[in-house]
Amino acid sequence: MQGIKAIEFKDDKLFLIDQRKLPVLFETFICESYQDVEFAIRDMVVRGAPAIGATAAYGVVLAAKEFKNQNKENFLENMGKACDDLNQARPTAVNLMWAIKRMKSIIELNKNLDVIEIHQMLEKEADIILAEDIEINKLMAKHGNEIVPQNATILTHCNTGALATAGYGTALGVIREAHYSGKDIFVYADETRPRLQGGRLTAWELKQENIPSKLIADSVAATLIRDKNIDLILVGADRIALNGDTANKIGTFMLSVVAKVYGVPFYVVAPTSTIDFDIETGEEINIEERSSEEVTHIRGNRVAPENVEVFNPAFDVTPNENITGIITEKGIVRAPFRENILKIK
Amino acid sequence: MQGIKAIEFKDDKLFLIDQRKLPVLFETFICESYQDVEFAIRDMVVRGAPAIGATAAYGVVLAAKEFKNQNKENFLENMGKACDDLNQARPTAVNLMWAIKRMKSIIELNKNLDVIEIHQMLEKEADIILAEDIEINKLMAKHGNEIVPQNATILTHCNTGALATAGYGTALGVIREAHYSGKDIFVYADETRPRLQGGRLTAWELKQENIPSKLIADSVAATLIRDKNIDLILVGADRIALNGDTANKIGTFMLSVVAKVYGVPFYVVAPTSTIDFDIETGEEINIEERSSEEVTHIRGNRVAPENVEVFNPAFDVTPNENITGIITEKGIVRAPFRENILKIK
Repeated sequence: MQGIKAIEFKDDKLFLIDQRKLPVLFETFICESYQDVEFAIRDMVVRGAPAIGATAAYGVVLAAKEFKNQNKENFLENMGKACDDLNQARPTAVNLMWAIKRMKSIIELNKNLDVIEIHQMLEKEADIILAEDIEINKLMAKHGNEIVPQNATILTHCNTGALATAGYGTALGVIREAHYSGKDIFVYADETRPRLQGGRLTAWELKQENIPSKLIADSVAATLIRDKNIDLILVGADRIALNGDTANKIGTFMLSVVAKVYGVPFYVVAPTSTIDFDIETGEEINIEERSSEEVTHIRGNRVAPENVEVFNPAFDVTPNENITGIITEKGIVRAPFRENILKIK
Repeated sequence: MQGIKAIEFKDDKLFLIDQRKLPVLFETFICESYQDVEFAIRDMVVRGAPAIGATAAYGVVLAAKEFKNQNKENFLENMGKACDDLNQARPTAVNLMWAIKRMKSIIELNKNLDVIEIHQMLEKEADIILAEDIEINKLMAKHGNEIVPQNATILTHCNTGALATAGYGTALGVIREAHYSGKDIFVYADETRPRLQGGRLTAWELKQENIPSKLIADSVAATLIRDKNIDLILVGADRIALNGDTANKIGTFMLSVVAKVYGVPFYVVAPTSTIDFDIETGEEINIEERSSEEVTHIRGNRVAPENVEVFNPAFDVTPNENITGIITEKGIVRAPFRENILKIK
């Protein structure tokens, strides 16, 4: 039931499933330095907001390993720089900033200890973040399963499973839970261009678990929704504003519009670490724009004319009025979102 | 201005630009028999409703060439079978059935002539269909250009250009006309999964003509529409019912929903040969489902797990209430659609 370990730390090394290569190749990407971790986040060896958070935490641990023979002053200065570098690996998923902030607070709280001890405290904290994430996923799955009807057909977007988290998943965690609780569900998975996380990763996880499913091009979803073939839409999140506006993988907003027009429940599944309590609305969320090659090339093959211009935002923002509820580890938050989000702070 | 010839007939052979290979390779696919033509339509060497119609007409000519040494009775019987085969190459674009019907009526009207003469009449009729299509495209472009504002940013889907027609294009014909009339337009082209006609073909045509444009993943369009970056949406059609419901490339319906919610004009550009006067609504349109490989493989490379199940409809139906107008060679048809479509029958 929980066979996929996307993130594992042992012997001072971070082992990541290389998600750029799935499902064709199953390879491990080994990070021995915080620079390796920064690269792994930036190049999407690892992706998914909660997974990025846990990975970044181990990046801080690897930085501490590198600097642990330095005097305290140099150590603290270099750790500050390493944290800044890791923080900037990707701009949208708030879990990255959240994890780095949490690791920095460990350094701050323990700055009177020896460097060696701070290093140990950091590794312990990263282990806690990873273990907590799995527990949080299971709580979200439990809350989420309450709103999944028997025999539901569920539409999901991008990958929000064991690969996107420390394990189990957010939206795909709810799907796992519904499946294992015997609800006879069926899943449609959007392939999720341009990076094809749905086709490469979600379809792979669903097959690993024998959950009945079909893969679709992203633009097929609208017809399925209109024709009443979808009972429920479950998506993850990369950053949620105080008013409930949710940044998630590009294509999520489009689904939310069609869902609202045709009256299909649309739920976001995300841990409270994905909520950015510092921003009021989605307008304040920085949307990452990634390289043209993600659109013009697929597995190294060109699928567009040379030198074509591309607009390639990695995320979009779904306004709170299109969201039926946000499923967190503390329960399901519904409108009025600002008021109810503040209750779970 | 009109350099792309997707379809050319000479010396008893049909020369098609092989659209499966663009933009990486520019190759000609030569049809020497009606079976070659049937394959070219089925395998999407040629695609786009008007182009399929003209191609099928030449398929009938090649059948007549094959059978022209037979006696009249055998000729007529074999021509009937060849027409049936061509008719079934693809199920959704009504221009195919329309062109075959038109060629059959030439056979019927001239059945007292010698077989050799019937063959000549058929070749003449196919030439007329091809030439008419270009003229019709230019008329549509002229009517369509009237509703394109100065400096408009236009969103389009799939390929509806010179490659999809006998030349110039339907929706892309309007875009060409607007560009050459000096309106300083900008185009966003959806890549159009799964076959990537937007990325491979529309982006290529736009570059050939130096029309300023950007390529986007299909799911990016919704955000552009909401954020008021799109003034106008122009799409083609594969079959239009009497009430205006329009079958077009998968993804069109999704755009129409978002356009309606955010008040962006949504126009279909299609010749009257795309209107199926025999069906009342879009519910009667047969939607082609194509192979899983179109989604699971891109240029021969696997991008999904092995044996994954796929739902791959090639088209969807946009309901008339989401359509601002249908731009035909006879003018722009608006609601009430049934009444106004009957006027241009």
